[in-house]
Amino acid sequence: MRSDRLGETLLPKKLALPIFASDALSSVAYAPDEILLTLGLAGGSFAFTHSWQITIAVVCVMAVVVASYRQNVHAYPSGGGDYEVATTNLGPKAGLTVASALLVDYTLTVAVSVSSGVQNAASAAPFLHGHEMEVAVGLIVGLTAMNLRGVRESGSFFAVPVYLFMLGIFALAIVGIVRKLLGDLPMAESAKFALAPQPDMDTLSQLAVMFLLLRAFSSGCAALTGVEAISNGVPAFQKPKSRNAATTLLLMGAISVTMLVSIVTLANWTGIKIQDPDRPGALLLDGKPVVNYNEDTVLGQLAHAVFQGFPLGVIFVSIVTGVILVLAANTAFNGFPVLASILARDGWLPRQLHTRGDRLAYSNGILILAGAATLLVIVYDAEPTRLIQLYIVGVFVSFTVSQTGMIRHWNRMLRDETDPSARNRMKRSRLINGVGAVMSGTVLLVVLLTKFTHGAGYAVAAMFVLFLLMMQIRRHYSHVGKELALAEGMDDQLLPSRVHAIVLVSKLHKPTMRALAYARATRPSVLEAVTVDVDPEETEALQEEWERREIPVTLKIIASPYREITRPIINYVKAVRRDSPRDVVMVYIPEYVVGHWYEQLLHNQSALRLKSRLLFTPGVMVASVPWQLDSSQGQEQHLDGFAPGAVRRGR
Amino acid sequence: MRSDRLGETLLPKKLALPIFASDALSSVAYAPDEILLTLGLAGGSFAFTHSWQITIAVVCVMAVVVASYRQNVHAYPSGGGDYEVATTNLGPKAGLTVASALLVDYTLTVAVSVSSGVQNAASAAPFLHGHEMEVAVGLIVGLTAMNLRGVRESGSFFAVPVYLFMLGIFALAIVGIVRKLLGDLPMAESAKFALAPQPDMDTLSQLAVMFLLLRAFSSGCAALTGVEAISNGVPAFQKPKSRNAATTLLLMGAISVTMLVSIVTLANWTGIKIQDPDRPGALLLDGKPVVNYNEDTVLGQLAHAVFQGFPLGVIFVSIVTGVILVLAANTAFNGFPVLASILARDGWLPRQLHTRGDRLAYSNGILILAGAATLLVIVYDAEPTRLIQLYIVGVFVSFTVSQTGMIRHWNRMLRDETDPSARNRMKRSRLINGVGAVMSGTVLLVVLLTKFTHGAGYAVAAMFVLFLLMMQIRRHYSHVGKELALAEGMDDQLLPSRVHAIVLVSKLHKPTMRALAYARATRPSVLEAVTVDVDPEETEALQEEWERREIPVTLKIIASPYREITRPIINYVKAVRRDSPRDVVMVYIPEYVVGHWYEQLLHNQSALRLKSRLLFTPGVMVASVPWQLDSSQGQEQHLDGFAPGAVRRGR
Repeated sequence: MRSDRLGETLLPKKLALPIFASDALSSVAYAPDEILLTLGLAGGSFAFTHSWQITIAVVCVMAVVVASYRQNVHAYPSGGGDYEVATTNLGPKAGLTVASALLVDYTLTVAVSVSSGVQNAASAAPFLHGHEMEVAVGLIVGLTAMNLRGVRESGSFFAVPVYLFMLGIFALAIVGIVRKLLGDLPMAESAKFALAPQPDMDTLSQLAVMFLLLRAFSSGCAALTGVEAISNGVPAFQKPKSRNAATTLLLMGAISVTMLVSIVTLANWTGIKIQDPDRPGALLLDGKPVVNYNEDTVLGQLAHAVFQGFPLGVIFVSIVTGVILVLAANTAFNGFPVLASILARDGWLPRQLHTRGDRLAYSNGILILAGAATLLVIVYDAEPTRLIQLYIVGVFVSFTVSQTGMIRHWNRMLRDETDPSARNRMKRSRLINGVGAVMSGTVLLVVLLTKFTHGAGYAVAAMFVLFLLMMQIRRHYSHVGKELALAEGMDDQLLPSRVHAIVLVSKLHKPTMRALAYARATRPSVLEAVTVDVDPEETEALQEEWERREIPVTLKIIASPYREITRPIINYVKAVRRDSPRDVVMVYIPEYVVGHWYEQLLHNQSALRLKSRLLFTPGVMVASVPWQLDSSQGQEQHLDGFAPGAVRRGR
Repeated sequence: MRSDRLGETLLPKKLALPIFASDALSSVAYAPDEILLTLGLAGGSFAFTHSWQITIAVVCVMAVVVASYRQNVHAYPSGGGDYEVATTNLGPKAGLTVASALLVDYTLTVAVSVSSGVQNAASAAPFLHGHEMEVAVGLIVGLTAMNLRGVRESGSFFAVPVYLFMLGIFALAIVGIVRKLLGDLPMAESAKFALAPQPDMDTLSQLAVMFLLLRAFSSGCAALTGVEAISNGVPAFQKPKSRNAATTLLLMGAISVTMLVSIVTLANWTGIKIQDPDRPGALLLDGKPVVNYNEDTVLGQLAHAVFQGFPLGVIFVSIVTGVILVLAANTAFNGFPVLASILARDGWLPRQLHTRGDRLAYSNGILILAGAATLLVIVYDAEPTRLIQLYIVGVFVSFTVSQTGMIRHWNRMLRDETDPSARNRMKRSRLINGVGAVMSGTVLLVVLLTKFTHGAGYAVAAMFVLFLLMMQIRRHYSHVGKELALAEGMDDQLLPSRVHAIVLVSKLHKPTMRALAYARATRPSVLEAVTVDVDPEETEALQEEWERREIPVTLKIIASPYREITRPIINYVKAVRRDSPRDVVMVYIPEYVVGHWYEQLLHNQSALRLKSRLLFTPGVMVASVPWQLDSSQGQEQHLDGFAPGAVRRGR
């Protein structure tokens, strides 16, 4: 896309909702599982009696977060993501904290969503059981390939499966509730099992109960991931942008909450029992551990129960759930490189990640994300429950910092605002963001407290390492920037007095002759050809041919008793510089241009080594005089396809 | 070592023997195992009755091969290895065949010797059982590190363990024979077992017996590996070189044969049974398969039996056997890079493997060898028996081709020789080499016939792939050589009429100013600074500063609607060339020189990409104008340590 065409297509709400909501809505595919499973550690009946409390707590947090982000949307119609909000209001270190959290979060979004997608698909396709990890890695590879090819999904591509997912879940909820009212809601497959409490849970102290409830709440907060997506996307909305975005956010929150409550309620009604994958054998049948039982997800079991006798319904729910989870993973593939590009613009990441829309830059971001997510999937065996322990920290770090930043934002606005009604609106917003900040901060504390040793610690460590790394990179750039900055005045423009040109010769062939011709064309003050005497016979032959061809340039022969090439040349160049320090030395190196990377292995090795060494010597320039081998023909066009901007231009 | 100091130290026979013989002598550590194990497929008694026949056959082949190579030694006192002999006498393709065989062979030498060494050491150190693979890989890593550091073993370093090995084996033989004569030779540990024949061996047809005997013979020929080593090393002998080398060869053959015969005889006397590692459970005790039995090597079991009641003897034999096998592997670490260097000199392998004594070149060779050997050890689980199936093909390919080459050699010599006594000597030599060629060829056929499906096929495939690869490399070099060759006459020295200098500018800092200053110093016909307008704001700022600083060079701004950098510059350069085709364009690129590889990731990425693309455009030179960042200080010395020749010079 040409720069001047950016931003021509704006989204109506009905398209914006599915585009930005796939991540947030898809979380209901795993959040109920986590609530039931964690509570299940205290036994099946405990999960039954307490899951609604947890759900209500999660719904409250969701309401507050949605309300808070509605303020963001109004305050930053330019689409300031959490990173921008934090940086603008709280300074670069806060911004960097958010950025570290978000980078980790995007990676986990891919790992969790894909793993959960596979697990859900396995409800309809039982042959996937036991191969979850391989399938998940395959999906990540597929997403990577798709994103590397630069396929931009259109709105409708996104909209259809998201609406189908909503359709599926609401159908499930309605059919389930109707059947319950009619009194013919079947029990779930796992209802016949008992769920043994964890051994140390037999004698539950008040404190232990409290802790377990908090842990279940932390896990349930996985339902909040992806809520912030809309606040990044405000500029893509049709006008009035902020209004539409705020409405969409509210709608999304409402749908999400309805789904969550429905699923947890139905799960209780159908008696679903979920065991911790790290505690196999907790499910009992007639007092004995159940073996050879492939546990389906809550959604999968619900679909089987509610749509009993209607297998198409089961398959439909499983498939749309799998698909929306993969779409959720895909949003990370879009978000990660964009964030990396913004971070690179601000000097926190290597510059080549910046150039906006640069295909190569994006490729790097996509590959880094894919690599990290694959590693996570392999290490955690594509088990969503294990991955979710790491997940929620990042989300709540960025929620908390961003909401705190918003308080500062309103404070600043209030300083300059005199209109009483505007001031009142701002104070109201500040209050909402304040509640949001306190709530997010509390949840963050709870998450850290209950999950640090279960995996959240790794996420914190990863954020910390990223934070330090990005600090170092920025420090490097700023250090180099100072080193390179021009002083005022013209003193940097002193011209060297003369140019001493040296053409490196190993033997006499066309590339050498071209280098000599070009060097002579530049009419240097001194011009000489230089060769290193590694093999006396070859040197003599070279000298003879040189004279026979009457080449009008002196050939200087440098001795090399240890058969080195680089060092004698470096020493010679240094000697030239010493004799006339105001000269600049230009070393001409004939170089082959080859068509294939493997040909590169066969050529230029000593030239490259020499070049990289020469560049360390002050007052020396190195000129590559290329000789295009036949095999290089046609490669030019090929390389163009990979150049930055090639995608925008269209090949 | 300085070039002019090469070849000052010559070896007396007593040092040459251990230096060149470790590979050949060490083969007796695994050859008897292979004979007994293969015969054992037909049951324990079959092995007992037939092993002496096989041994005699192997001794005969050894005698012929030694006699043949004594002719090589006399004919090529310059130390023509099999590759040289084949190339000189039978042409490059024969040479290349031998080279492929030898490269595969060196790799297998490392894998087999190290694996067998670990197996033998396990006789004295039973805790190694079950960890053979890991220990073997560790040993290869150790050898690699040693050879990468360029530690050259002195003669005495080699001599001591080889002589100790001879001492150990001869002591074993003598004590064993004496005890047998005295009638108190104990039976081996495995004598109490029965060895079940392979199921399909119950009804042995004549043909099956024949085939099994041939297969055992093939395996036994492993004793011949390394015999050719002396023929490569003739120049290292004291004068008379050929005479001394021939004597040493004879001595080595005699020692090797004596050891082999002694070991097989003692193995029969002590009733040793060896089972195929791929046929576990063949050993029976009271009719039931033996479990939890760690099978020692023949040498290990012999030592345990012969030195019963004298554990120091057992440990001594195991350790010296392990050590000599590792030394044998080390000979491949010396031989492989030297051969690769010769092949690179002849254009069969990439040139950077050539430079004689170049540490970097040798490093590549050493790493390739180590990598391939490690892979083999892992794939074949450090099991010598499995590796040996691949081993012997290469050896006999090179024996056969080399001996055939020797026949041609003598034919050519005979054409010019008139002295009857000399002619007689030559005819005698030709006869010996002829017998050698026929015998080697026959053994090669037998090996291929009996082992192709057991693994030799892979070795043949590897040789074939290497052969094709090296053909391709040489074809490439010769193609390029023709492309680059100068025609007679001076037409290649046409000078371009003018120089059009372009300085690439992204922003104004010291590197840019230096590039401008240097470019101006070369006084080109046209000089202009060029920047690409990717971001209008930045471009405007650049332009303003340019004017403010009154830089006396025109700044040209190239539009880039797709935010590309490379393509607009390439197009501009091409346009310049089109307008004045006889101009040469010199593009100056300011480049940062950094101290650490990871800093490179943070800089120069677009410059490098641009440079590699510019080199494809004819009539363009690219000059790197380096700016040495502070961090590059001191790195220069560091790089020097890795430059070719650094080892010879001594740091």
